[in-house]
Order: sequence, then C-alpha cells, then structure tokens
Amino acid sequence: MDRRRRTFRHLEPLETARAALLERFAGRLTAPEVVPVREALGRVLVSFVRAERSVPAYHAAAMDGLAVRARDTFGAQPDRPRILGEDRVRAINTGEPLPAGFDAVVIIEDVEEADGGFEIRQAVYPWQHVRKAGEDIVRGEILIPARHAITPFDQAALLAAGLATVKVFARPRVLILPTGNEVVLPEAAGELEPGQILEVNGAMLASMTVECGAAATLAEPVSDEPNALRAAVDRGLDGGFDLVLIIAGSSAGASDLTPELLAEMGELFVHGVAVMPGKPALLADVRERPLVGVPGYPVSAVVCFRELVAPLLGALQGTAATSPVEVRAAMARKLPSKLGMEEHVRVIAGRVGERLVALPIAGGAGVMTSLTRADGIVRVPKEVSGYAEGDPVRVELLVPERSLEGKLLIVGSHDLTLDLLASLMFERSSGRVSISSAHVGSTAGLLALGRGSAHVAGSHLLDPETGEYNHAHVRRLLADTPVRLVTLVHRWQGFMVARGNPEGIRTVADLARASFVNRQPGSGTRVLLDFELGKAGIEPSSIHGYATEEHTHMAVAMAVASGRAHAGLGIAAAADALDLDFVPLAKERYDLVIPESVVAEEKIQLLLDIVRSAAFAEHVTAMKGYEIEPPR
Amino acid sequence: MDRRRRTFRHLEPLETARAALLERFAGRLTAPEVVPVREALGRVLVSFVRAERSVPAYHAAAMDGLAVRARDTFGAQPDRPRILGEDRVRAINTGEPLPAGFDAVVIIEDVEEADGGFEIRQAVYPWQHVRKAGEDIVRGEILIPARHAITPFDQAALLAAGLATVKVFARPRVLILPTGNEVVLPEAAGELEPGQILEVNGAMLASMTVECGAAATLAEPVSDEPNALRAAVDRGLDGGFDLVLIIAGSSAGASDLTPELLAEMGELFVHGVAVMPGKPALLADVRERPLVGVPGYPVSAVVCFRELVAPLLGALQGTAATSPVEVRAAMARKLPSKLGMEEHVRVIAGRVGERLVALPIAGGAGVMTSLTRADGIVRVPKEVSGYAEGDPVRVELLVPERSLEGKLLIVGSHDLTLDLLASLMFERSSGRVSISSAHVGSTAGLLALGRGSAHVAGSHLLDPETGEYNHAHVRRLLADTPVRLVTLVHRWQGFMVARGNPEGIRTVADLARASFVNRQPGSGTRVLLDFELGKAGIEPSSIHGYATEEHTHMAVAMAVASGRAHAGLGIAAAADALDLDFVPLAKERYDLVIPESVVAEEKIQLLLDIVRSAAFAEHVTAMKGYEIEPPR
Repeated sequence: MDRRRRTFRHLEPLETARAALLERFAGRLTAPEVVPVREALGRVLVSFVRAERSVPAYHAAAMDGLAVRARDTFGAQPDRPRILGEDRVRAINTGEPLPAGFDAVVIIEDVEEADGGFEIRQAVYPWQHVRKAGEDIVRGEILIPARHAITPFDQAALLAAGLATVKVFARPRVLILPTGNEVVLPEAAGELEPGQILEVNGAMLASMTVECGAAATLAEPVSDEPNALRAAVDRGLDGGFDLVLIIAGSSAGASDLTPELLAEMGELFVHGVAVMPGKPALLADVRERPLVGVPGYPVSAVVCFRELVAPLLGALQGTAATSPVEVRAAMARKLPSKLGMEEHVRVIAGRVGERLVALPIAGGAGVMTSLTRADGIVRVPKEVSGYAEGDPVRVELLVPERSLEGKLLIVGSHDLTLDLLASLMFERSSGRVSISSAHVGSTAGLLALGRGSAHVAGSHLLDPETGEYNHAHVRRLLADTPVRLVTLVHRWQGFMVARGNPEGIRTVADLARASFVNRQPGSGTRVLLDFELGKAGIEPSSIHGYATEEHTHMAVAMAVASGRAHAGLGIAAAADALDLDFVPLAKERYDLVIPESVVAEEKIQLLLDIVRSAAFAEHVTAMKGYEIEPPR
Repeated sequence: MDRRRRTFRHLEPLETARAALLERFAGRLTAPEVVPVREALGRVLVSFVRAERSVPAYHAAAMDGLAVRARDTFGAQPDRPRILGEDRVRAINTGEPLPAGFDAVVIIEDVEEADGGFEIRQAVYPWQHVRKAGEDIVRGEILIPARHAITPFDQAALLAAGLATVKVFARPRVLILPTGNEVVLPEAAGELEPGQILEVNGAMLASMTVECGAAATLAEPVSDEPNALRAAVDRGLDGGFDLVLIIAGSSAGASDLTPELLAEMGELFVHGVAVMPGKPALLADVRERPLVGVPGYPVSAVVCFRELVAPLLGALQGTAATSPVEVRAAMARKLPSKLGMEEHVRVIAGRVGERLVALPIAGGAGVMTSLTRADGIVRVPKEVSGYAEGDPVRVELLVPERSLEGKLLIVGSHDLTLDLLASLMFERSSGRVSISSAHVGSTAGLLALGRGSAHVAGSHLLDPETGEYNHAHVRRLLADTPVRLVTLVHRWQGFMVARGNPEGIRTVADLARASFVNRQPGSGTRVLLDFELGKAGIEPSSIHGYATEEHTHMAVAMAVASGRAHAGLGIAAAADALDLDFVPLAKERYDLVIPESVVAEEKIQLLLDIVRSAAFAEHVTAMKGYEIEPPR
C-alpha cells in the first residue's frame, strides 16, 4: 500500500468551488469570430447588432387584391358594392410595393370584375392590408442584444435586416484526457482482464460538452506516468484549448498523481468538493487556463460536469449556463443524507393522481443506469440530513417536463420483462408513454402503491399456506386499496450452479451436500425456498450457508460463479449472465398489481394491451426461464 | 388582374390537417442505419438494445483501501481499532477486482499501518465498499428502449455494456425550395428593387429542421415557372429526400402555381388550414412522399413548421415531436380573435409579483420581430372569440421557463434606447436578466403598470399646463400606485422633411405653407405638437393635413419620404432611417416609471445601475437626436 496517499484535506462547498472557478475564468471569453448568419444557430453574439436595412423597405401589399385609395371604398358593403374604374385601382400581389398615391389594399375575395371597373364589396381603412415601411425593423435600431444565443428566428431577422455575418464568441475548445494504466477503450477491449476498466466517461463528457455549445476533443487514454500526463496537458495548452478535463486519477488512490501534478504545474485551487457524488473534483489554474479533474465514477463525473464545467463553458462563450427545469414533487420514500455534504440523488418521477412524486433510484456513484433511468435529480443541501417520506422536494429534470404526464411508475420486485414492457410501451406510443421503475422488492412495492406513490406494483409473493401468489399479501397490505392483479409472466426459479453441475444439485434435498448462498428474508425467492424446504421436510438449519444472505439474483449468481458457494436460488437470466448452469425448481407467477382507480387511464389500457399482445409473448418466450400462460 | 385566382375553398382545422399528414406518412420511417455509439447523440434507436457485458464484470473495490473479510473487522472502532496481519488484507484501489475470498473494503481513511499489520478503525459489513458484478448492468438485460433518443448517459452505458454501434433511424433529409420570381438571396442583394423580396425563410426553416434532428438542404430559389418548380420537386424526390418544403407560392395570389402543380403531380390533400397565421399551408402526397407548402410570411411559416412539419419530422425518425413547455399566465390585455380560426399570438411574458403575465406583441404574420421578441405563443382556439384582460391562458414557451423569472417587462411608449438598455442588461447579467418590451403608447403603459401587468412603463407625456413631463399624468393615472420616475434619456422631436428641406420648415409657423402628416390623439408627439401650436398661437385647423393621422414615427417618416406630405413631427432616428432631413423642434424627456414596490428588486437595481452608467451614456449620445442630461 502506497503511503503517499492523501485524503481530501478541505472539501469546498459546491457553490464556493463554482464561484472560485468562475471568478478566475469567467472573464476569459473565447476570441470573437465572424461567422455567416446562416451558420450561426445557437452561437452567442459578442455585441448587439443594429439593423442595416428597414423591413419592409417600402409600403407593401400584405394581401393579394387591389391597391386602392381607402376613401374611394368608404361605404362599400357586400350587398352594396362600390364600383371603381380601372384608373382608381391597381392589381397587386402580396409583397409588391404599393403604387404612389394608393394607401390600402382590398383583398381579392372582396372584389368582382364589373362593367367599367371593379365591384368593391368591403370598405377598407387607410393602410389596411398594407405592410408599412419599417413596421417590422427600422434601420439603425438594435435588433438583437449582446450575449444572445441566435435562434432560427434571429437568423431570418438578421438576413432581412441586411446582415450576412455576425460576430460571435468562438466555441470553447475542450480537451478531454482520460487517465490510468488500467483504462482501455471499449472498442478495443475483448474480454476484460481483471483490473481493467473501460473508458466510457470520455464519450459521455464529450457529448455533454457539445450540448453546452463547445467543441470536444477526446484524447487517447494517458498512462499513470507523471511525465506522460504533464506532456499531454502541455500539448493541450500549447494547442490553444480553452479548458482541459482530466478524467479520474482524481480520487485519493495510490495511482492518484493528478492533484500533485496540477499543484506542480500551476495552482490547484480546489481539491475536493463537498458534494456526493462528485467529491474528488479538482480545479486548477495552469498557465492561466482552467483544468478540471473529473472524478472517475460516471455519476460523480456528471455531477462535476453539470455543476462546474457547464457553467464555465457558458461563461467562456459569454452566456450563463442553461438552468435545468425544476418541478416540485413529493418524495415517495425516506431518503437519508449525510450532513455537511450536498447530495445529488437520481430519482424517477411522475404524476400519480394529483401528485407529482419522486422515487430515489438505488445505486452508488458507479451505477451508470442510475443516470440512464433517471427522470431528474434531487439536491439534498448539505445542512439537511435527508427527507422523510412525503416531504416536498425540488426535482431538476433530466427529461422534458411534459414527459412526466406520460410516465408510468412501476415499483416493487424487479423483473427483466419490465424493461421489455417499457420498450414496447415507448415504441407503441411514439415516446409519449414511458415506464420508470424502482426496484424495492415486492412488499415495499405494494406498500408504495397503498401510499399513492406509484401507478403499478410488480410482485411475486408466494402464500405458503395456499401455494398461491400475491392474493394473500395484497389483501393484507392493500386492504383499503381495491386493486386488480394482472399476470405479467411466469418465470422459473431454480438452482444456479457451476457449469456441468459438479455437485449434481437437482432438488432441495441435494443442498444437504453442498454449500449454499441465500437471499434476504422477505424476498420472494427466500419465501419460495422456505416453502420448498417445508414441503420436503428439510430443516433450514441443516443447509450449509442458509444464513449467508444476498440481496439480488445477480449477487447470488456471482457468489456461485466465484466459487464461494456451490448453489444459490434465482432466476435463469442471472445464471445465464454469468455462464452458470440452471436447474429449474419451481415456476412462479409475477403479477402487476394495479389500483382500480387508475385502470381506466389510457396509459394503463395501453399497458394491458401490450401485456396481452403477441409481440410481448414472443419476446418473453425467447428469454430463458420465462413463460406466458394463456389467460384462464 | 389574373382571374384564375382561387380562394381557399375548404380550410381544414389544424388538428385534422396534422392527423391527415401523420396518418399518411408516420409509418414511412426513415431507413435504419448503424452508427458508432460515440456519434449517436440524439439519434433514435430502432429497437431496444440488450447489454452484451455485465457491469461491473467482476466484484470491484468501490473505494481505495484494504480488501478484507468483513467478519475480521467486526468490533473495530476509531478508539478501539483491530489489528489485521498482512495475510488478512490486500491493498486495493477503486475499480480493482476484489481478490478471491475477500468480501469488503475498509477505506484508506480508516486504516493505519501498525506493527505486524494494519490498524482497522472502522468495522465493515459484507460487501461494503464493493461494487458487485452486474450491480449496474446484467448481460442480456434491456438497456435502452426502442425509439429512445440517445443521451450522453446512454452513450456511456452502451459502451460499458459492450456495444460500439447502434442501429438508429436515419436523419430525415429535408429539401427546402424557396419559390418566386421576386425572391432574391440577401447576400446577393444590394439596394432592393421595388417588388423584390428577400428570401430569409429558408435559413430559418433549415435551422428549425436541424433542431428537429433532421438534415436540411436549402436550394436556390426557383422561379414562378411551373416547369421549373416541377423539375425541382422531381429532382428532390429522385434524390431521396424524405420531405420537401416549398416556401411561398402557397397564398392565393396571381403567381400561385404551387397548389395546382401539387394537385397535378400527386394528391393535394390539404389546401389551407384554419389557423392564423399559417392559413395558406398546403399538404400533398407526391410519389408517396410528403410535400408541404409553407406560407411565405415568416410567422405563418413558423406556425406551419411547428404544427405540421415538426411532428412529421418526429414521426419519420420514430419518435414524437418534442412538445413545447407550457405555463399558465394571465392575459395582460384584451385580445380579440376571429371565431372559426385558431389564432397563434406571440406574447412577451414574465412574472410580475406573484402573477405570470402575458402581453400580446403587435404585428401581423409578416413581422419577424414579433418572433424574435416573443417569449411564447398563446393559442386561441377556433371556438373562442378572444380573451378579456386578466383571463387565464396557456403560454407555449419559446424561451427557457427559468428565464421568465429574470424577465423585466417594460410597456408603454417605444424608444430605441430601450433596446440598448435590454442589450446592456442581458450582457451585464450574462443572460440572467432580459427585458421584453411591449409598445402600447405612454398612456396605455401607465395603465398597465397600475394593473400589475408590467414592471416598468416608458413614458413621454407632456403636461401642457406646466411644460413638465409625466408627473401630472402619473398622478392622474396611477393615483393608487406609488412610483418613482427615472429619466432614461432626453430626445429631440423635430420636423422630418425631404432632403434639403425644400419647403424651408423651421418652426411650427412654417407649417402654414406645407402639407403635414400628424400622429394619433394621445400620443406624446401629438401632445407636443398641440403644445407648440398653442405657444405660437396657431390654430390647428389652419394646418393642412392636421387631420391625417399615423400611429408611428416611421409611418410619419414614410409619408414624407413618399411625397404624401411635406413634413411630419417625430424623432431623429425615424428621419434618419428613411434618409430624411431632421429639423429639431423640442427636446422631450423620456422617463421610466417604476412602482416603489419593485424598486428594491435586484433586476430593477441592475437597470438603474445601467441607466446611470457611462457605457449607456456613451451609446446613447452616439445615437442621433438623443442626449443624456446629468442628474439634477
């Protein structure tokens, strides 16, 4: 163990770190450049722009019809038209200049040809149906303010006002440097060697950079060699990059050379931030350019980017970073948080009845799917020790606000076919209905349903007395909530064993001669095991490893795959994922539990359609260990 | 006059037109294509994607520290550490695989080297600080649903899950064809010939297309020659474009060949839509491809694009179009609307006190600045004849929702320096504070302030009795609203006359021998004229053209420029815009009227800072006819 390890000596509060970063660099705007208006979408104007032409440049017809003198038409009505001679009118099309001496246009629908001229069936007032010179834009007026990001509308207005080019801030150029000897590019990697880590943050940070209107250059990973990193940083600064992001190497680990190097090369002015995830972020000033050490965990990297890098990228191009849209929601579960640290919690969110609810997603800073599945982020301030269930919170949205209305929240036991259901729902509704699911276990799911925190619960709770699934539990836990049970799938639970099943595990009785790894009490799988043991008259305490508990199918599979146990009980897909053999034990029913109060909703009806569809059945039966039974 | 003109025979309601368009073409998804995940930002997945690797692939340390067996640490506390021998621990860094037989990590901060091993100062439970294999992603599970648009987070998850490429819908290719003999490209145009129209919609529609995730090709303008347009459309369809937009040529004008041509080439299934602006939109099916006739007025073109083209572009690439964010607001002014036509009204919007208010922007379908200045759009349904002041309305935002909080609404008389103020505010606040202004005249502005519909009013109302500006009017119109008057500028009003001042107009007395064009009663300029006439003892009726009224400085200038009158009264900038001579008559004071209740707000303080700043004074005094007077 390397004794030069350092802990974070002083964690800066997030806002202090951001302020320090912006104070140093917000004045370092990128150089202005002149670009064609046609290519200026989203670019930020250096100065205000004055119109060089008036629009319209002349009085022009606003409609097709006849140019007239308005007073000639006074008194004309549909049933009492006035007749004007050829010399009193001029045919005119939209956009054409009004001839001298004329001051209005009668639209074509109000005109008929007549002997000796035209019947005018509707009087017009002076300047009616005329676009007067300068009514849109007056030469010399300020058309667009400084620091404004150019929209499609602005492009049209600028071109019309005689401007073919505009002066904008150059897009900040960002160099992204992944670091670490253990890091390999996913495209190059075959099977991962133990200890190898895929470099995937670079692609994510590059896209986030692009979304901020900047240009990203993702470098090849740099080894944990001080000189290599120093050389890469120097090359970046020599190459004129406006910002360098150094990924990872920023935790307090043994191979952590970045902070020392940054302190050597320039000034390391923030070493760790009081935010979770994101703590190991570094901020440095090297050769008067900003360098940000981005933590290696993807969620930490995202927090660091959103909170520090994005505002800086805005500032460098002369504008404030876009703020996320916030909504108010009720926290659907208790959420503890550490005092003194601002915590950014990924949540799923949706409207259940009248209430917008937010449900935290389990998973630490390393869990990428906590980001891909998140609808938003709840920020727990550092002086708050967490939220109680029902507390009002603000959710910073990662999805369009409108999508919350089409969100179906499914909580409870996780099953792989929920993701299939989600995909089919999204596809069938062209993205209008999406499923967000929280995996809290069957019992917790039913309780959440009772509290009005979800639309649907997924459950596979066996009643040992009847051998039936879910009904008894629903009666007990949802006594006051009339619900409907809809069977989603039947799935096999079985023994996960090493390839070839060396111990020959076929039945619960065979567990006597093997070491076992169990699931936690209350899980559907544990309930099933106890039921099967009871049927076979086997004493749980006789099973070696009965007291060893894991919380997921995958953890059990992993215990078997790594040789810690000979067998565990779980679903086929988990065994398959780790190349284990699977010995079916019992087929269980996985139900969707749906309150009667929401059954009539369009999105629930769509859900039911899909559950009953041939496409769903086809996909499910193609998955190992799943069956669809025809409705009874 | 060409008698083949046609009126719109049957206007489809907007929703019917959109449904017809989507029904025909929503099934014609673009061809799938395989792209690298790294380049797939924003692209839409054809099918769901299953993970090809588990993440993590092995149990890995989640923190730097020592790998241990959790039970070895039980009982360890900061003041009662346990000592573990070298054989009971392994140094481990974040991400490294947990050695076989170990099941937890003690973080480095809780470890000290000690004689014969390590002091463990904190017990850990099994799997603490360990990322278990598959805890993020399990091989075979559905990672991302079909039809999902790929985010930066998805890119990282896909790469981590072993996917280097994804199958996405091709970006729809859109051909944009401007038409019309009168149309010229702005970059090519020098001084416009009468009748020439700048082609600026193409650039705007191209950018809007890109914002929808599609690829735009803007063609050279096509002449009003049926064969030319036919050939251009055919070339586009031969070239594989998924959608052709034909700009203009879609009104019922003489040169309107598009509908006939489309009906000839295929099926013209919508000819006119019951929406304002946007009525002349055309929808056609030619060789099984969608063609949209986009009206020539920019606002009409935008409505047509948002309502018809954008949903189609979404559908072609397998997803729903992004819905605009909507907010509820109070309509700050009466808004009449035509029954039977859905009307889309551009508004400025902001929060005044507790209330979000929306103020309609004046200007027809041809006024581009009604788009560039708009914060949102209020949709008046076809069965509604308008809104009364104070009515609740929904505003579809064109700006980020958050920006409404930083919005300063200034209503009243328009002055060119308000745009300067807006630009300086935006710049100084890095885009956090923006000014939206509505030009309703001084009196209406003061009344709006009294109703709580704006933050600030701009006013230049002379009190003829005292020769003072604004005070008397404010006392009368805002009796119940304590306000502060802050002088923004002094500006010269004067006679606008032809170059060289052929009639020799110097004073109001000289008007006796000229023809005049006046402003409407109640306007500050009219009040000033009457005051000056009174001082000189001149009878208004003695002035030829006193009864001829215009509503803006520019309209007065135009009347003079076109020879309709010898002189008018207005500001120097209007004269300058039309190359007229300007004879100063009187310097007037233009005040900002600010309710005391908002003076302390940060954005008002910023406003006051800028009004008093040297930068503002410098810009203003560089403008013709403006002066800044030192505060008294």
